[in-house]
Amino acid sequence: MKKKQTARQVFAENLRTLRRKRGSSQEHLAELANLHRTYVGSVERAERNVSIDNMGRLAAALGVPLATLLQEARR
Amino acid sequence: MKKKQTARQVFAENLRTLRRKRGSSQEHLAELANLHRTYVGSVERAERNVSIDNMGRLAAALGVPLATLLQEARR
Repeated sequence: MKKKQTARQVFAENLRTLRRKRGSSQEHLAELANLHRTYVGSVERAERNVSIDNMGRLAAALGVPLATLLQEARR
Repeated sequence: MKKKQTARQVFAENLRTLRRKRGSSQEHLAELANLHRTYVGSVERAERNVSIDNMGRLAAALGVPLATLLQEARR
């Protein structure tokens, strides 16, 4: 059994997975969310203690409820 | 139909509702999450742009997955 992921890691992984599923680049997603491309990259690497306002913008840019980006994968 | 709530408002409302369901005070929850009581109060009033790390601590203190605290109510 893998170690339980932190909220940061869950969000990072879901964000990257969903962005790729949409066929979107970090740059494109950043533009839609009105954030910087390097910022989106660092969030996807779980380097940032991202705030709820920015999480909401990223979810809206991907067209999903924020809860979806925090859903833990079953392991 | 009501206006769509922001992520902040959804989190604030769910946090307060679940904390009360647990019969827990802001003070007690803050202690469990290792945060300050006045901070928890301001998060519950949607005044704070709370970070994902603190959201994770609050969810863990309440014993629920973080996604639960971001679930939008059906209106």
